[in-house]
Amino acid sequence: MPRYKLIIEYDGSPFCGWQLQENGASVQGALEDAVKAICGEQVRVHGAGRTDAGVHALGQVAHCDIAKHFVPGRFRDGLNAHLRPHPIGVLSAEVVPDTFEARFSAKKRHYLYRISNRRANLALDIGKVWRLPRPLDADAMHEAAQRLVGKFDFTTFRDTECQARSPEKTLDQLDVIRDGDAVNIVTSARSFLHSQVRSMVGSLVWVGEGRWNADDLQKALDARSRAACGPVAPPDGLYLVRVDY
Amino acid sequence: MPRYKLIIEYDGSPFCGWQLQENGASVQGALEDAVKAICGEQVRVHGAGRTDAGVHALGQVAHCDIAKHFVPGRFRDGLNAHLRPHPIGVLSAEVVPDTFEARFSAKKRHYLYRISNRRANLALDIGKVWRLPRPLDADAMHEAAQRLVGKFDFTTFRDTECQARSPEKTLDQLDVIRDGDAVNIVTSARSFLHSQVRSMVGSLVWVGEGRWNADDLQKALDARSRAACGPVAPPDGLYLVRVDY
Repeated sequence: MPRYKLIIEYDGSPFCGWQLQENGASVQGALEDAVKAICGEQVRVHGAGRTDAGVHALGQVAHCDIAKHFVPGRFRDGLNAHLRPHPIGVLSAEVVPDTFEARFSAKKRHYLYRISNRRANLALDIGKVWRLPRPLDADAMHEAAQRLVGKFDFTTFRDTECQARSPEKTLDQLDVIRDGDAVNIVTSARSFLHSQVRSMVGSLVWVGEGRWNADDLQKALDARSRAACGPVAPPDGLYLVRVDY
Repeated sequence: MPRYKLIIEYDGSPFCGWQLQENGASVQGALEDAVKAICGEQVRVHGAGRTDAGVHALGQVAHCDIAKHFVPGRFRDGLNAHLRPHPIGVLSAEVVPDTFEARFSAKKRHYLYRISNRRANLALDIGKVWRLPRPLDADAMHEAAQRLVGKFDFTTFRDTECQARSPEKTLDQLDVIRDGDAVNIVTSARSFLHSQVRSMVGSLVWVGEGRWNADDLQKALDARSRAACGPVAPPDGLYLVRVDY
């Protein structure tokens, strides 16, 4: 039974998230419906990352096993045809060894968080960025962010419903880059805790607004307490960019 | 009576275009309603370019005269507040001499046309790009496009309802640039005919698909006949980027 690796782009706005849920449309559910429509098989589509409601993906990765043998390009085209009008695009489909697991084989996950730092209403990016009208000091955010790079107990930046066995994670990269009105936060790690990126971004925004300095961020990390976290950034600006294997 | 220059971003999807119309919401109408809500004055907001239904702007320019004196930042913020939830953002508002005319003082207009050249469904860019699944030869498109740069009679690339007195225009730039799956067409001129950019883009796509070569594009230009034009590209991918004065 061939195993297929899929690379998927989606607009998270209309979904309750990646994961199948009883109430509400999920990306996983839409993909499983599309597979069933093509080959009649009800299979599980396993994703690399369970993105929350409203979170987007430029390169989510998933795998599924189906009995039917497809030319991979045909499988990709068929999925795209059956996914319409959902805002989900299957960028590629390829056959992989059955040792490949989208979630457990992942070596690194890359996320992007987009902030629009301007007073004007959003127009072309509604639902796609977090608009913050007060001027942010992106350099101060970047400098403070470096305190979070490394192996730490990230309990402060972890959703209380996070199911990971350990709060310890190794953050490889957390860069804050200004480009005009855009402030982009680029981060990567082998894996992240639930809401970790949005929790770190919200706290960095407090640094950017001058409410916290780097030492305050350090203290929040050291507290290992959810209560020490800044605000949690909204899902709109978050993108799962790529997963490395 | 102070004259204000506005720089405006908008998502053209929900509008019948820039210009006020009896049926349907226009960007101009939304702006005029916002001005009235702020200061009670019913004024005309004059735009630099009358974008068609579905066409977007990153930097449309407009002017209006109002009796009330505002701190310009306050006027910008007030317009933004009253424009919600329309996808229109007023990026700046500044007082200008009353010799300034958004339309007639313009020295150069810059447009961008975005193509997504991929087989996957659109997801994050629905309504914002033209998706073309067949591979496009962007280099051939760029080379052919240079035949249109200069002063010519652009009757071929002009909507039959265009009201300009002369079909003669000077095109300063028409570059076709590939960046991964994106094919971006960047063009500038003092002014354009109605549908000129979309007509040129549609014809260049025929070049990119190998259906036409540069000589065929040249023949279409030389024909000075609307019937010689290729397809007209959809509004989704078109952006008024900037206007120079």
